[in-house]
Parts: sequence; C-alpha cells; structure tokens
Amino acid sequence: MTHKVAILGASGYTGAELVRLIAQHPNIDIAALSAERKAGMTMAEVFQHLRHMDLPRLCKINEIDFSGIDLCFCALPHKTSQEVISGLPKDLKIVDLSADFRLRDPEEYEKWYGNPHSAVELQKEAVYGLSEFYREEIKSARLVAGTGCNAATGLFALRPLVAAGVIDLDEIILDLKCAVSGAGRSLKENLLHAELSEGYHAYAVGGAHRHLGEFDQEFSKVAGRPVKVQFTPHLVPSNRGILATVYVKGDADVIHETLANAYAEEPFIELLPIGEAPSTRHVRGSNFCHIGVTTDRIEGRTIVVAALDNLTKGSSGQALQNANLMLGEEETTGLMMAPLFP
Amino acid sequence: MTHKVAILGASGYTGAELVRLIAQHPNIDIAALSAERKAGMTMAEVFQHLRHMDLPRLCKINEIDFSGIDLCFCALPHKTSQEVISGLPKDLKIVDLSADFRLRDPEEYEKWYGNPHSAVELQKEAVYGLSEFYREEIKSARLVAGTGCNAATGLFALRPLVAAGVIDLDEIILDLKCAVSGAGRSLKENLLHAELSEGYHAYAVGGAHRHLGEFDQEFSKVAGRPVKVQFTPHLVPSNRGILATVYVKGDADVIHETLANAYAEEPFIELLPIGEAPSTRHVRGSNFCHIGVTTDRIEGRTIVVAALDNLTKGSSGQALQNANLMLGEEETTGLMMAPLFP
Amino acid sequence: MTHKVAILGASGYTGAELVRLIAQHPNIDIAALSAERKAGMTMAEVFQHLRHMDLPRLCKINEIDFSGIDLCFCALPHKTSQEVISGLPKDLKIVDLSADFRLRDPEEYEKWYGNPHSAVELQKEAVYGLSEFYREEIKSARLVAGTGCNAATGLFALRPLVAAGVIDLDEIILDLKCAVSGAGRSLKENLLHAELSEGYHAYAVGGAHRHLGEFDQEFSKVAGRPVKVQFTPHLVPSNRGILATVYVKGDADVIHETLANAYAEEPFIELLPIGEAPSTRHVRGSNFCHIGVTTDRIEGRTIVVAALDNLTKGSSGQALQNANLMLGEEETTGLMMAPLFP
Amino acid sequence: MTHKVAILGASGYTGAELVRLIAQHPNIDIAALSAERKAGMTMAEVFQHLRHMDLPRLCKINEIDFSGIDLCFCALPHKTSQEVISGLPKDLKIVDLSADFRLRDPEEYEKWYGNPHSAVELQKEAVYGLSEFYREEIKSARLVAGTGCNAATGLFALRPLVAAGVIDLDEIILDLKCAVSGAGRSLKENLLHAELSEGYHAYAVGGAHRHLGEFDQEFSKVAGRPVKVQFTPHLVPSNRGILATVYVKGDADVIHETLANAYAEEPFIELLPIGEAPSTRHVRGSNFCHIGVTTDRIEGRTIVVAALDNLTKGSSGQALQNANLMLGEEETTGLMMAPLFP
Repeated sequence: MTHKVAILGASGYTGAELVRLIAQHPNIDIAALSAERKAGMTMAEVFQHLRHMDLPRLCKINEIDFSGIDLCFCALPHKTSQEVISGLPKDLKIVDLSADFRLRDPEEYEKWYGNPHSAVELQKEAVYGLSEFYREEIKSARLVAGTGCNAATGLFALRPLVAAGVIDLDEIILDLKCAVSGAGRSLKENLLHAELSEGYHAYAVGGAHRHLGEFDQEFSKVAGRPVKVQFTPHLVPSNRGILATVYVKGDADVIHETLANAYAEEPFIELLPIGEAPSTRHVRGSNFCHIGVTTDRIEGRTIVVAALDNLTKGSSGQALQNANLMLGEEETTGLMMAPLFP
Repeated sequence: MTHKVAILGASGYTGAELVRLIAQHPNIDIAALSAERKAGMTMAEVFQHLRHMDLPRLCKINEIDFSGIDLCFCALPHKTSQEVISGLPKDLKIVDLSADFRLRDPEEYEKWYGNPHSAVELQKEAVYGLSEFYREEIKSARLVAGTGCNAATGLFALRPLVAAGVIDLDEIILDLKCAVSGAGRSLKENLLHAELSEGYHAYAVGGAHRHLGEFDQEFSKVAGRPVKVQFTPHLVPSNRGILATVYVKGDADVIHETLANAYAEEPFIELLPIGEAPSTRHVRGSNFCHIGVTTDRIEGRTIVVAALDNLTKGSSGQALQNANLMLGEEETTGLMMAPLFP
Repeated sequence: MTHKVAILGASGYTGAELVRLIAQHPNIDIAALSAERKAGMTMAEVFQHLRHMDLPRLCKINEIDFSGIDLCFCALPHKTSQEVISGLPKDLKIVDLSADFRLRDPEEYEKWYGNPHSAVELQKEAVYGLSEFYREEIKSARLVAGTGCNAATGLFALRPLVAAGVIDLDEIILDLKCAVSGAGRSLKENLLHAELSEGYHAYAVGGAHRHLGEFDQEFSKVAGRPVKVQFTPHLVPSNRGILATVYVKGDADVIHETLANAYAEEPFIELLPIGEAPSTRHVRGSNFCHIGVTTDRIEGRTIVVAALDNLTKGSSGQALQNANLMLGEEETTGLMMAPLFP
Repeated sequence: MTHKVAILGASGYTGAELVRLIAQHPNIDIAALSAERKAGMTMAEVFQHLRHMDLPRLCKINEIDFSGIDLCFCALPHKTSQEVISGLPKDLKIVDLSADFRLRDPEEYEKWYGNPHSAVELQKEAVYGLSEFYREEIKSARLVAGTGCNAATGLFALRPLVAAGVIDLDEIILDLKCAVSGAGRSLKENLLHAELSEGYHAYAVGGAHRHLGEFDQEFSKVAGRPVKVQFTPHLVPSNRGILATVYVKGDADVIHETLANAYAEEPFIELLPIGEAPSTRHVRGSNFCHIGVTTDRIEGRTIVVAALDNLTKGSSGQALQNANLMLGEEETTGLMMAPLFP
C-alpha cells in the first residue's frame, strides 16, 4: 500500500532533504509540495539537484486538497507552523519539523521563542519526536514534533545516562560544533561563504540557544527533578554535521555499558568501542548517530562524543523515521543508505 | 536471484563507493573484499562510515574462493590490475576500474602509462565501459573496462557531436575542473588539506594527462579519422565533481538538438534547457550527468558544459551500471538515489 | 610627508582590504571612512579583524571634510560611484574601484551596465588603472579607474601578446576560475556557504560577463583593430583568487619571451619558467601575479595561465599601487608583503 | 643595525611562516635556510608563494657558518631539535619552535614525549617563550622555547585567572578547535583534503594531548599548587586558527576585569567587551589573540573563549616576538599586520 504525503515548506533545506529521502522509499508518494513565495515554480528550478525526479509543481498551502493525503510534513518556520497546522484537517497525521510543538509547557515556549503559543490544544496532543525514546507514543500519535537538531545530538549522548543516574546531574557541559546548513537557506551575512569558510566561532554563548528548552524538558523529565546543563554551540565551516562533546562526571565503563544497553536494539545508533571518538564525516547524509565514550585522565570524569547529520538524523531523516512509525511501515524503510564519504 | 560479487582493492575511495552503492542494491551481495596491505582489518576500521554494515573482513586476493563469485570489481591501481586479472578464472565476469583495459591499442597504452601491456589477449576482449555508448557490447562482455572519470565527462559532452559531425573536429578545447577524490587516497603533499583547500591550479597542462588516450581513441573512432583535442585539467578544492567546459565551433541549436536526440532515452543524462549551465553540486553523490549548451557572442562558437560526480558516474556508479547490464539486472537498479545537496 | 586619504564604501570587502593594506603603508593615514547604511558604527563592529586599529568611525559621505584629504578611494557600487564622484571637489585625486570609469566609450558602458553614463566629462578624464600598462598616465592623472578583477587577470596574461601580434587575435579563449569574494558582501542565495562550498559552475556563459567590455577596449586598442575574445568565468569554492587559463594560437617560446620582455622590470609580475603553471594559493593576500606558459601537444597551440588575488592585485592592491603613483610615493610601498600560505 | 638570522627546518609550515614575517621586518636579514632532505633546492621550489623573494638556497645545517649569525630559529621536529641545538655554538641566541625545551622537568618531558631528554643542561637554561608572561626573562635569555600552539591559546585565556585565584582550579575544561596546519606538512591519511574537508572530530580525547604538559607546568606554577585541567582538542576543516572554549567556575565580571588588567598594556591581546565571543577568522594571518568572556545561565559559571592563528601568534609570530625581545628590537616590529579577511 502506498501512502500519499504532502511537504509544506519544500523550498528549504529540510524540505529538499525529505524529497531526497522519500525518493528512496518504496511505499510513499509525494502528492503535494508547497512553498508560498515560490508557488508555481518546479522543484527543479528551486533545487536543481532534484531535476531528474517527477515531482508535483510547488503550490500554495491553500491549493492542496488534503482529502487524499495520508500524512503531512511541515517544514515551515516556527510560529508559522502552529498557525498553518491549526488550519489543517483534524484527522490528518502530521510530522512537524519546526520548534512549535517540542515544548510541553507553553510558558517555556514563550520564554525561548518570544511569542505566546497560539495553538495550545494542539501542543498538548503533540508527541516529542525522538523515535528512539518515544517509539510507542509516536506509533499512535497524530501530531509529532520533530526535535531540534542540536537537541537530538545531545539527547542521544546523554538521555540514558541521566535516566540511569550514572552521572552527576549538576555538572553536565555540552560543547557542540554545528555545520551551517542547520541555519537554513536564509540570507544572512554571517552565512556567506566568504564570511564563514575560513573560521569558526561560538555563538549563543552562556545559555542563550533555544534548544536548551528541549534539554531542560527532557533531562528533567527522566531525572524526576530539574536538570540544567551548560550548552555552547559553535559554527564550523562545513555543510552537514553536529558533533557534541559532552563533559560529565561519572565512570566511563558504567557510562559505556549504560549506553550499550540503551541502544542494543537501535538500528541507527552506533556505539563505538570505549576509547574511540566519532566524526561527523562518517555519518554525513545518513540517518546514523555515532557515539564514543572515553575516560579522562582526571578520575571520575568522562567525555561522551556524539555525531550525526543535522539534516538527516537531526531533522528530515528523523521525520521520515517518525512517519514510518505513524504509517505502520518498517521504521528503517528508506533510511538505511550509507553515509557519503568522502 | 542474488548475485555474489567480490571487490578487489576495497580500501580505496572507489572501493568504498562501490560498497555504498551496492548496499542499496536488492540483488547483489558482497561476498569478498580484498586489500593486500590492510588484509585482516574490518571495513569499519578502514572506512568508519561503513561501520553499520555487515561486511566480510578484508582479505588478500589469493584468499578468495572465486568459485562462488558471479562478478568481480577490480578497483586496483593500473598495472597491478592487469597482473591480477590475468590470474583470475577465465569465465569470471569482471568490471575493471583501472586504466589497464581502456585503450584498444597496446602501443597507445604504453605511450600513456609508461609500461608495456602484459595482458594483451585480455585487452582485446575488453569492452570500453561507457554504458550509454556500449550498452549492447557490455551486456555480453566478460571483461568491461571502466573509463577515466575525466574521459567520461568529456565524452558525455562531445561524443554525439563528434559522431554527428556538427562541430569542427580540429578546434575542440576541454577545460576541466576536477575534485580531489579523483586523485585517490594516496599520500601526496599537494593533496593535503592545508595545501589544497584555499587555491586551485591547472596540472598536466599542454596535453600530458593520460585520459587523452581515451579521448583520442573514442573521438577518432566515431569520427572515422584522427581527432585530437586540447585538454587542461584543474584541481579545485572540492571532494567530488568534475565540470567540463568545452569550447567548440558549431551551432548551439544544432548541438543542443543533437544531444537531446542522443540522450532522449538515457536515465542518467539530464540535458538542461539551452542557455543553462550545470553545477557539480547538483550531481554530488549521484549517478547523474547534467549537460548544458550555450551559444557564444562570437558567431559559430558554442560552449557545452557537463557535470558529474567522479566517484559515482565517473567511476563506481558507472561500474555498477555496467555490472547491472552484465548480470541481466535493470540498468538503473541501486543507482537512482538523488544527489546530496547541500 | 604623510598623505591623508578617505575611503568611501568602507564596509565592503574592497574597503576592508584597502584598510588592511594602508595599515602597512608608512606615509598614508586614513582620515575618513564612509558607509552610508552603517554610518555611526566603528570599523571593529563591521569588520572585527580590524579591531586592533585606531580608525575613524564610519560616517556618511556628506559628513566628510574633503579639504584636508589628498586622495579618495571610492569602493562604491557602479552607478552610485559616478554620482558620488560628480559631487566631489574637482581637484581631489580619486582612485575609483567601481566599473564606472573603465570604459572610454559611453555607449559601451551603457551596453554592458544597462544605464546611461551620467558623468561623461569625468569619464573622458579617467585613466584606466592597470599600473603596469598606464604608469605614466596614472602618475599625472586626477581620476584613475580601477580595473575589473577578471579583466586584470586576463590582461596580464594577454595584453603584451596582443600588442606584439604573436598570437592569432581571432582565436583567444579565456576560461577563468574566480573566488567568491569577487562577488562582494551582498546577500545572495548562491553565495551562501551551504550552496557554494561543495561545488562549482560556469556563469555568464557565452559572452555575458561585463568585464568583456574591458577586454574588448584594451585588446582592440593595442591591436589597432577590433579584437573579440571568448570568456567564461566559473565560481569555485574559495574566497580569494582568480585563475585565468588562456588558450591561444602561437608559439610557446615566442610567447614566453614576449612576456619576459614585457615584465622584466615589473616588481609584481612573476613569470614562471616555461612549462610551469601557477596556483592561486601562492598569491593569496598579496599583490603578485604569477604567469605560466606551456606548449600544447597540438602544434601551434599554447596555454597561458595567470593567477592573482582578486581583492589585492585585482582590486585594492592595484588601487594602492595607483595611489602610490599619483602621490609620488614608491610604487611598491605597502605592497610587498608575501602571500599567506597555507 | 641589521641582525642576521638562520632558520633551521625551513621547508615546513612554521619555517615558511617565519620567512613571510621576517620579510616585513626592517632590521632582520635571513642569512641561512636549512632543510636536510631538500638541501640544494631554492625556497621557491619548496614554497612557490615565496618566489618573489631573494632568499638563500636551502642547505644542510652543517653547511651553515654560524659565526656571522646573531640568532637562530629552530623549526625542527622535537627530539631532533635538542640534538641539533646541542651541537650549535654555545653563545648563539636560539628561538626553538619545537617541544624540546618547553617542560622544565625532564621526567615530564619523557612522560609526554616518550624519549629521555638528551640535553638536560640546555633545558635548564631555556625560558618558556610566552612573551606576554616571560618578557623580562626572554630579553636576557640565550635559549627560548616556543610554546605549543594549543598551550598558548589556553594560557592566554586562563593564566591570569589561575594566578589571581578567581576561578575554581579543580573545575577547568578546555575544549579546543584546531585548524589543520598545526599538524604540519607531514603525509598522513587523515590530513588529506578528501578525508578532512567535510567533517570534524575530537582527538587525543581524555587527556592524551602532549600540550597538557605545558598546561600542568604553567598553571601549577602560578597557582603554587598542582592544577590539572581537562583538555579536548578537535580537528576542524580550516587551515589556520585555534579556538579555545574554556569552561570555568567563577564570576564573569571579575574574570573580565582580571583579564582587562592583565592585558591592559599588551599590544597583541584584544579583550572583547563582556558578552562577545571571538572568531578565528578575525585573527587569521596575524599575531593577535582575541578573548571574550560570557556569563552562563547557571550561576557561578563563566565561558572564556580565545582565538589566535596557530602558525602566527601560536608559533612563528610568537617566535619573532621573542626574537625581537632578545635582539633589543621593538617587540612589535614586523608583527602589526592586520588579519587577512575574508
């Protein structure tokens, strides 16, 4: 049986990545692609790398007949997303890639995103879309909220450790190195090749990055008490990849074993032998997450490093993984392609 | 029916690319992987991006039992390749990715590669592996010689034009811009990141590049008389991609139409509307070749630009396409993945 | 004696490059820096790499007192530049980095730039700013027009050859590979790191690039008859550098000797031994131009390759070289720094 | 007065960088350049970007007449360096860029570098070459040991804070992002462009990096008790630059003020306004170090970020700064060039 899907916001990088992935899926057809400002254009005009595909022309959202759609991917900006989803049919399955339905608490949402939430009822219904931890809820969900790409990386490294209580919850530091495609296709001076390509820097230093809302929510939930982490993202001259270097206090062997148990059956999480460290180049373009654990020379300290592709496992691959669960497909269908290296 | 294949020389980039592609092929299993100096290692140790795959351990060629192998990919250096293939079973189907069997004339081989050919009988048997032009011969071939990646790019841009006689055969200039993975994984100073990443240069200037042997052979063959082209490759700071900018004398409309007719049924060749030019970023990691045709301001001059990924369409993707033909599979199986952008 | 200069349009890349170079000049002081939209900001806010310098705050042009200024660099967009310069004091020495005064013929200007020239009298007065060829005129000029960066590269490779008549004037092809900083700091989708960094393409194919106006003017002038060249620029993922690969018909030895004679006394032009080819990485950040000459395997064909840094020798370094001539300074003062490699 | 210097090991990146810098120095002449394996070659053959300079031909060390040399830069590998320096005249001023004389304690040297020290007497004499902290000792030293580039970056961020006791000495984490030129010009697979350019990873995780010996020595010395830090370096796809993100426990205002006082008179250290973070792209090719201080959302936590160019301020620029001190020159001579951006 073939499922028909729509992708709203198809002219951005996560939209294009969804098209790339779904093209390899035997049971999903793309029935509609929207892009308000580029409506009327072909996908080949907006993304020349997709010109070999037979795809619907870009349209406006209000031109889509949702009656034949089984599932809708929303790759729209936050705030826009909640407004659009509020107007969609109430029985339509939705995977939202924006930030709008990630945070359970509307006040937390407002604190991090600056605007009051306008779809609080939908927010209640939404399931946090980290497939590895919310698999059963996602299977029966109608609305799934894709996670932040940085949040996904940190959660893969840490969530089982926080849940098991094998690390000091008050002494967690996440130092993330992020590629530029995470910032999207928007026209900003600091994203120009000439500005970015030969240097790197920290940004949102001191706890200002919005994905902290997700860390606070998820870590506090599994710990059963408030947990606040330090998190400093850095922008590096690469297009895809997030590398999280996580500094914790805890025993490396116990930490490695805890992660090994947590991910024993997970098809997309690769735990490296203790002492090895992963690289973003080895997950590029794939849905895999590589995790390494190393003990520090200072007793009681351990470094956990996680690597994934922000556009795939951190966003559109995760979205397709969730869609597979929601549609009754094998979770891994269309997602087992190997990384592109070199 | 599942075909069993071996890959000889699996620790290089074209070997790894073959593994990446075959992983998506439903009817081909990898039965053996060789790498003389890295025998005994796992593929994950040599290429961490393949660590999720269940692959045979690297071995020496003489450890392989070829009796159960249906087809063998040889991704070995030239000269080594002819020696190894001479020792393989005479009924084993072989796709060779080296330069050893590309040139029909042993003297041409010796002229360009510096050593006499040691397997002249095999050379006679080999078919030149540009699937789009030798499809029928490849289907029934036992030994197929994969083309040079630069040669493939230039031939896609020019071969139908030379065959049709719609351009001046004495005034063809190919200015190629090549990515660094074409040079392989060898340790050379000029391939270091610090040397290469912030500049670009021409090399083998003046007609010294070995792929000229292929151009001479193929163009002269279809023209029915000797044709010599000018060819200057350039190394640019990118990992994948070849862009051929071809300067010809001929009418742009006639040229565009000639290419449109030649490639009308080709699944991997995308001819752009006249006046548009392709980019390597839009074919990256895929088996597609994009071609554009533009008329110059000087009457009677036309520029043809072709772009492909040297590791895929220019090498391992082409090899799998040929293997599909030789094994009776659909030509496109395992090869329709979209490019990776960004 | 210290000369006081103003830089108009100091918030762009050529403006910043001028500041970088002048900082090394013992006899030039920066008295004013303008940037209309960023007036009031410090240079450190606009270009953090200049934060150690003691520089005037950015202002609007009409806030500058030109009475104490000896020379003014205009790094403004074309069209704006002619309007601004028309309003400046008539005895102020000016080095203009825009396209506005490069073309002698106002009709040629309008043809290439789309708007009629509004300062035709000034245009008559302007000297074409390629120091190596217009040294004496520049010394006594009031208004010097900086050349296009692509034009400079091609002219260094070809102008002495066209003047000497040692190549076929009807068969000249320039294939240029240009870095991204040449496009400036403007916000365009195709200049984003994620779009540009992993691919390359030809643009303005077929004779559409504006710098052709300069080639036509200069080559025709020295040849004494109309000369039209073919010129295809390519955008490559690098920040600085232009590499011109020039295909000509002529004898390589004669060509090399002609260039050797032309540049024997030039401090910034390095002619390589015959058969060697230059690289943009070896001129990066410097005012040098490297030129190589190689004979082709096809008799009578020669390839000339020239490399320079578009922001330095192709633009701001050339501007300072001209200013030195106009101010009676040594031509090389402040410009002899070695390239930055790696 | 002109000083004559020799550079031993001139065929590596730090050697070439020394030549680039000294070329701008009015009072230093390069009298000899050595490179054992490339002896006899010109510098232009080894580093084409220096071809415009009039430099001595590369020679073997034993061919140098040291009687006319005022100061010798040793840019040799560690272990080789101590052997060579042992054989040099005992009154020759030396700036060593290797690791051989950085550590006061020969046992610490052996622990980190694996071989016993063979020049213990020289080691006693050596001064640790961080000009900002050992200025007076350097002025009168005969042998100065250049610091590790990572060590320099971390020490600029932390040394005044450890000395002043304004941070918790047992809770210091340095997460460093390093560019590839720090690894030198050696032929290693992981330094190839195709391997490195599209990803990043942590290495020497857990306290295995040799520069920890320098941190231990310097921090313990100024604290008056043993101090051990956590230090994780990462390799990022860029050629120049080190970014140190330092996590400390202490008050951000106090920390900022402590650094402001420490560096008030330093010409090369730029402390940013509190809350701002530096970027490697803004120090590229220069001798400046930019430092930023930001308070974290978790009370009592502060992030200090320092950026410098590993080849300049982290190595060859520092070496020239030390040489200036030793030769009685102005400390800043030849070192005030602005960074190269973009």
